[in-house]
Amino acid sequence: MENFNFYSPTEFVFGKDTEANVGALLKKYGAKKVFLHYGGGSIKKSGLYDTVIKSLEKEKIDYVALGGAKPNPVDTLVYEGIKLCKEEACDFVLAVGGGSAIDSAKAIAAGVKYDGDFWDFYDRKAIIKDALPVGVILTIPAAGSEGSSATVITKESEGLKRGTGSNLLRPKFSIINPELTYSLPMWHTAAGIVDMMAHIFERYLSKTQDVILTDRLCEATLVSIMEAANKIMQDPNDYEARATICWAGTIAHNGFLGVGRQEDWVTHGLEHELSALYDMTHGAGLAIMFPAYMAYTLDEDLERYYRLATQVFGVPQNHFDKVGVALEGIERLKDFFAMIGMPTSLSETDAKEADLPKLLETLKKNMGESFGSFKKLTIEDAKNIYTLAWE
Amino acid sequence: MENFNFYSPTEFVFGKDTEANVGALLKKYGAKKVFLHYGGGSIKKSGLYDTVIKSLEKEKIDYVALGGAKPNPVDTLVYEGIKLCKEEACDFVLAVGGGSAIDSAKAIAAGVKYDGDFWDFYDRKAIIKDALPVGVILTIPAAGSEGSSATVITKESEGLKRGTGSNLLRPKFSIINPELTYSLPMWHTAAGIVDMMAHIFERYLSKTQDVILTDRLCEATLVSIMEAANKIMQDPNDYEARATICWAGTIAHNGFLGVGRQEDWVTHGLEHELSALYDMTHGAGLAIMFPAYMAYTLDEDLERYYRLATQVFGVPQNHFDKVGVALEGIERLKDFFAMIGMPTSLSETDAKEADLPKLLETLKKNMGESFGSFKKLTIEDAKNIYTLAWE
Repeated sequence: MENFNFYSPTEFVFGKDTEANVGALLKKYGAKKVFLHYGGGSIKKSGLYDTVIKSLEKEKIDYVALGGAKPNPVDTLVYEGIKLCKEEACDFVLAVGGGSAIDSAKAIAAGVKYDGDFWDFYDRKAIIKDALPVGVILTIPAAGSEGSSATVITKESEGLKRGTGSNLLRPKFSIINPELTYSLPMWHTAAGIVDMMAHIFERYLSKTQDVILTDRLCEATLVSIMEAANKIMQDPNDYEARATICWAGTIAHNGFLGVGRQEDWVTHGLEHELSALYDMTHGAGLAIMFPAYMAYTLDEDLERYYRLATQVFGVPQNHFDKVGVALEGIERLKDFFAMIGMPTSLSETDAKEADLPKLLETLKKNMGESFGSFKKLTIEDAKNIYTLAWE
Repeated sequence: MENFNFYSPTEFVFGKDTEANVGALLKKYGAKKVFLHYGGGSIKKSGLYDTVIKSLEKEKIDYVALGGAKPNPVDTLVYEGIKLCKEEACDFVLAVGGGSAIDSAKAIAAGVKYDGDFWDFYDRKAIIKDALPVGVILTIPAAGSEGSSATVITKESEGLKRGTGSNLLRPKFSIINPELTYSLPMWHTAAGIVDMMAHIFERYLSKTQDVILTDRLCEATLVSIMEAANKIMQDPNDYEARATICWAGTIAHNGFLGVGRQEDWVTHGLEHELSALYDMTHGAGLAIMFPAYMAYTLDEDLERYYRLATQVFGVPQNHFDKVGVALEGIERLKDFFAMIGMPTSLSETDAKEADLPKLLETLKKNMGESFGSFKKLTIEDAKNIYTLAWE
């Protein structure tokens, strides 16, 4: 086990009707004028927007609103938000939506307090030293941004998708009402499920040995996610299953399931190129890339893959064929992804094999010649993994 | 699942040699003059005290020290601490030790900011509205106070043991170095292990249905605790096992393993009378009371006890004899407690059956006529459970 800092100061307010308390929470955290950032029109149709405004008005909290955050949120909207937020002298950023709205809200919160170009944070040219406080009402369980220090933004003009993070960006509070996710289309539900599972895999597939408590907590969460996914396929309004997915998505990414281990994130790196080039849904890209990455790195730690297969995917123990058991685990993961409607091969998507050189070129620009910690990968390895992902 | 707030803002700094950074952490959290509170002389013998002072001096942080916190920490020391802390105008309370030092440090932190008698907080006459910030260096994994909002103090003159809590008392940081626990005698190691398991049981044995993710996280933690306990019995200097116990003790009580459920705490109530009357080690009292409580409440939710037996204690499934399986689970728990050197019956302790009326009388004073949520208990039920605990 490695030394670690675990710091997750966010107040998580979880359950039915909790969004109606957003005004009181904002007041508690000192907000006077809120910059309300959201995605598309769905929160207006669902009535959530009105609930939020009513709660703000009740507490006499002023606000300015900016919608338009889309999956793979873009820098142009962030610039617009920073400008508006400064002009209006807002002192708190409230994101209402999924990871895209939250990630651009975080970028705005940091950008407002920075004199230079906010992209410097994503370009590794500057470190976040100050930010407006951020609050969240979550509508899409997936990215885990409601409990994390991270934000990922795409620079549209260059097709670059990059992330940064700071404890200053951890939300003061995150309101999570599972009922708000009932209306989420199955595609987005499924993509979110893949995303949170991927956040766990990036931590679980680690070279660090002897972190057995964290291993078991990861396994418990993965099993619960898949069980709940199954229930949601039967009944999208299953409260307990939606609640499991919501909470699992949060703990999958607030750092808790990674304590004591070296984390990896190389598969996210490989996927980011896909979603930047093809505007592919992040979760769909991960559903394709993870099984390929796992198969490619099987020899790196067979025992770990054997454990994953037996503890999470229910593959029967067979100590005489550990490779077979481990591979069966990966097959079951693919079957699960397919069952919830996700692609498991690049051949099911718009991706073209002819683009492979382009993919690898941007990958090199973003990640360098060598990357990954569970297995040290080169650009050649990345090529092999993308190729496996086409099969 | 019930609605919940989960708020654990403490920065956990975990691992080898982390105590040497206490000065830097105090500085980060704004401390100028620290009230250093600790237990017995063991931290001086071990060199920990010197490490702390050196780190404070390095950061030019002034301090005043008060030792003497004992198991079942007493009000008289808290009064002394409040007086000294006020006189010296300290602005931060640092606890170095186990639950006793941390709990009285929390009482001092709240008492300093209150004009009345600090016991008012424990007597339900006042609510904590302000407190000095608290930091922790943990040396005994058990009470979970390093991550909790709670504090329990014993009023010596009346033999009353009472708890209170406030988010204001959650430590700003907690330093947890598993190596500091190598020298902990096996008795205290074992009592701590029982205590953290009990913190999980108080949350796991709940009437609230459908909190399966939390159930699995509890089970994962319980299994990991027992496995690590076994390793420590073989080798007290097993770092990974000590680390598992330390981290498990923290997450067992920072609220994480109780989310979405009604918690109970009645067994703690029953035990508190024992440790107040006989100065019994809290963990030893819990090792006696929990199996008795479980046997007495088996019918309340057989399915839950069946799940506990099969998922945590490895009892083979047998759907034709769920009672038998559940009882076997409780037996295995007793066997585990005995294996780590804990008593499992009051007959192994100083407790006298003739004291039963006295025990019940104080219990009534502390808990009223009726208590408990998993099973509503009366004083008569409590009598039956104590009687079972004598067998």
